[in-house]
Amino acid sequence: MTAARHTLADLAARFGLQSRGDGGQSIDGVGTLETATPEQLAFLANPHYRAQLANTQAGIVVLREADANACRSACLIAADPYVAFAKIAALFERAVAASPGIHPSAVVAASARVAASASIGPFCFIGENSGVGEGAVLGAHCSIGERCQVGAQAHLVARVTLVRDVTLGKRVLVHPGAVIGADGFGLAFDKTASGQGSWIKVPQLGGVRIGDDCEIGANTTIDRGAIGDTVLEDDVRLDNQIQIAHNVHVGAHTAMAGCAAVAGSARIGRYCLIGGGAGVVGHISIADKVTITARSLVTHSIVEPGEYSSGTPIQDNRAWRRNAARFKHLDELVRRVQQLEKEAKQ
Amino acid sequence: MTAARHTLADLAARFGLQSRGDGGQSIDGVGTLETATPEQLAFLANPHYRAQLANTQAGIVVLREADANACRSACLIAADPYVAFAKIAALFERAVAASPGIHPSAVVAASARVAASASIGPFCFIGENSGVGEGAVLGAHCSIGERCQVGAQAHLVARVTLVRDVTLGKRVLVHPGAVIGADGFGLAFDKTASGQGSWIKVPQLGGVRIGDDCEIGANTTIDRGAIGDTVLEDDVRLDNQIQIAHNVHVGAHTAMAGCAAVAGSARIGRYCLIGGGAGVVGHISIADKVTITARSLVTHSIVEPGEYSSGTPIQDNRAWRRNAARFKHLDELVRRVQQLEKEAKQ
Amino acid sequence: MTAARHTLADLAARFGLQSRGDGGQSIDGVGTLETATPEQLAFLANPHYRAQLANTQAGIVVLREADANACRSACLIAADPYVAFAKIAALFERAVAASPGIHPSAVVAASARVAASASIGPFCFIGENSGVGEGAVLGAHCSIGERCQVGAQAHLVARVTLVRDVTLGKRVLVHPGAVIGADGFGLAFDKTASGQGSWIKVPQLGGVRIGDDCEIGANTTIDRGAIGDTVLEDDVRLDNQIQIAHNVHVGAHTAMAGCAAVAGSARIGRYCLIGGGAGVVGHISIADKVTITARSLVTHSIVEPGEYSSGTPIQDNRAWRRNAARFKHLDELVRRVQQLEKEAKQ
Repeated sequence: MTAARHTLADLAARFGLQSRGDGGQSIDGVGTLETATPEQLAFLANPHYRAQLANTQAGIVVLREADANACRSACLIAADPYVAFAKIAALFERAVAASPGIHPSAVVAASARVAASASIGPFCFIGENSGVGEGAVLGAHCSIGERCQVGAQAHLVARVTLVRDVTLGKRVLVHPGAVIGADGFGLAFDKTASGQGSWIKVPQLGGVRIGDDCEIGANTTIDRGAIGDTVLEDDVRLDNQIQIAHNVHVGAHTAMAGCAAVAGSARIGRYCLIGGGAGVVGHISIADKVTITARSLVTHSIVEPGEYSSGTPIQDNRAWRRNAARFKHLDELVRRVQQLEKEAKQ
Repeated sequence: MTAARHTLADLAARFGLQSRGDGGQSIDGVGTLETATPEQLAFLANPHYRAQLANTQAGIVVLREADANACRSACLIAADPYVAFAKIAALFERAVAASPGIHPSAVVAASARVAASASIGPFCFIGENSGVGEGAVLGAHCSIGERCQVGAQAHLVARVTLVRDVTLGKRVLVHPGAVIGADGFGLAFDKTASGQGSWIKVPQLGGVRIGDDCEIGANTTIDRGAIGDTVLEDDVRLDNQIQIAHNVHVGAHTAMAGCAAVAGSARIGRYCLIGGGAGVVGHISIADKVTITARSLVTHSIVEPGEYSSGTPIQDNRAWRRNAARFKHLDELVRRVQQLEKEAKQ
Repeated sequence: MTAARHTLADLAARFGLQSRGDGGQSIDGVGTLETATPEQLAFLANPHYRAQLANTQAGIVVLREADANACRSACLIAADPYVAFAKIAALFERAVAASPGIHPSAVVAASARVAASASIGPFCFIGENSGVGEGAVLGAHCSIGERCQVGAQAHLVARVTLVRDVTLGKRVLVHPGAVIGADGFGLAFDKTASGQGSWIKVPQLGGVRIGDDCEIGANTTIDRGAIGDTVLEDDVRLDNQIQIAHNVHVGAHTAMAGCAAVAGSARIGRYCLIGGGAGVVGHISIADKVTITARSLVTHSIVEPGEYSSGTPIQDNRAWRRNAARFKHLDELVRRVQQLEKEAKQ
């Protein structure tokens, strides 16, 4: 397979970017500033990497106008170099090999409807009253239960489970190991007179609705609603190992990094950024355009856009132990300072 | 499919509840206070939602006696409205379609024993010397290794893995992606004279025993013991993405919310509530009836029942940064206050 | 099956250990100090369990010389009893039943190359241009995409997914549910003039390279690189539910406990120990021989070996609430103390 070559002039024209340097300069792939060869295109978006500009061997660099003078390679100037890079790099993506049709090993229920242009991979199971839209691709080992709909051009990479009553919009991309539509964690404690008792399962009667252009990471779980549905609006992007509990509602264009978790019935706005490992407790609301930094825990509703955090900074363990021990008496410390202030006033 | 209708009088009689309103009032489903139609039953348990009582359109509301006067709909009075709702909602659960027998695509080892009334779904694999009890249901893609026992009426929804030496009690419910019985993380560092070295795997020779009526969430992992077994007593309820390490022992009726994690050989009591994302370090014990709030980390044994927490509250990022920076010098701050107190006494 | 018996003298000779007691004393299995019978061997490594030495029924105990006098059973003396125990316990491990060959239910692409001595289990799928080395074992339900290489003697226990462009070294052990080679979470926000916009996927063009003797836990996820590869050097040990983002580099002999997470392009040194649930943000470096305690979040590069921590200690909830509330005003408290100090000097 020979990779296609693209010249500076071609790329500038194709993506509507200004260029500096020899328009005939050509590349056949992408790299980082540090690793790119003269045959590759790199980009500078994160200022963290600006120092690498001086020594890059990249044939072409995509960058902001302000950085162009520091670059000896040919340049493409972009208001947002990362967006421009994303579009250019797509030229080099290897297509998924998926031809229309149902693999002979797959098991499809009699009442399921699979579009003729869809591709169903080896060992897929599709249950009763479910449907797969035009051009959708299900890789190996996908398990689709009852009453699920997979939207047109959706891509379930491999080993994705839709349990039941799950609807995926168009072009939804789901990575392996994701489980969508499992029972929410609904339990009522049935106490006996003696103070003992046991758990009763609360039936989970709702489904999951996922809008168009969403992405769901590997081993992420999204439970179906107890009553009504768990909802992701359009263009929600979830990284790996995220947990979305029953009846959560996530607004359009919100992105969550790996291992974030949202408890039941929480409502998250649009254009939010939820950092890696961050948590949101149940039954609260987060406004639009809120950023939660990594590992922070949101314990009450947030009504103003902005950036929010919790936790303590990392330190060498000995210093941390001393400080952490003091945290246990912080309230008392404040009272001692209050006492000193009172005495100072006298 | 026409949903069954149930009248107020019928429900009151069936579940032993008092009622207020027209006994002929009937419903054919359930909803929330906010979304229920006059054809649906709703409930009020969490005081957070009390204000919704005034405007609910629900045909029937299950609530505590103290809330009944504020409700214009027909009511069912329950000491614990959530328990009563759980029982009523079960009337509307759609049964899982599973007929007895082994799907022709399944692979069952010669020495495995599957009860005639059990249902084994497409692409299931059942290994040597394993057994599946009466009425048990294995959905698609379950993988059962050697020497495992699935109890009567247990339900493995789909794509559940029992690695080996795993015993599930009666009526255990396991959600997709759960992995029970993988190797515990046992490693010994074999140091060389130079201070370098490499890891040696500690054989994981035990199994996993899970009692009756337990529920195991999607993508939850429970490792088998190193020596002896990892144990969940009866009626333990685990949400999604929980990690239970080797040789952990969890007491009956304990529930853990999503993403909680328990390290090796920890022992957790009965009737505990472990919040979402909470952690328990290895080789410690937690007494009965302990509640750990979300994201807290338990680093030492807890001997008294009660509620325990760690962490800091969420704040806007700028305020948090200032406070977090001060935390790094908290011990020094205490010493400065001590100095001021000493000086004040002089 | 009769377990093999081993005498004290045999074990001492075989593993190069000193012994105390009757050389003819024999055992046929292992146990803990608390549970071992006279037919079993136990060990004492963690001082936490030293008190159990007095009452152990174990036939043989592996321990440090300093502990030997307190032990009434026959002893094997080891500089590192846990390492010695790991080697001895391996005598009792039950071999995985895997005979060479491809199970008739497996689907193997025409261009895939499977060594004759490899074992491919039921319902495995192996994609185009992938290879499986000599003696490798793939348990049931493994899904291997395009251009993957499984090293000689590697063991994919069951239901492991290699998405594409993944290379596993020799003797790599991967537990069920692991997903290696899914897309990294690369997104560029394409803002419109109005301040709205939507996400563009950044193509993930790299792969994953995993060295020899690595272990990957159940439901752990390792994404492939955006440009270039995500890399684990030799003898890296990952527990369950760990998230390794795109382009992370993990040095040889580093071990991470369950639920740890490493964000994109972070670089972790050799011989590091990353505690359970610990996190590392993206684009930073951690030196060799760094220990991060459980649940700590690393937010900046660490250049010195040592132990590092963040977080606050667990307390009863009422005390914690008071202290946590004060944390929100910690910066102000420091200013008040500064003011008192200023006044005291006057």
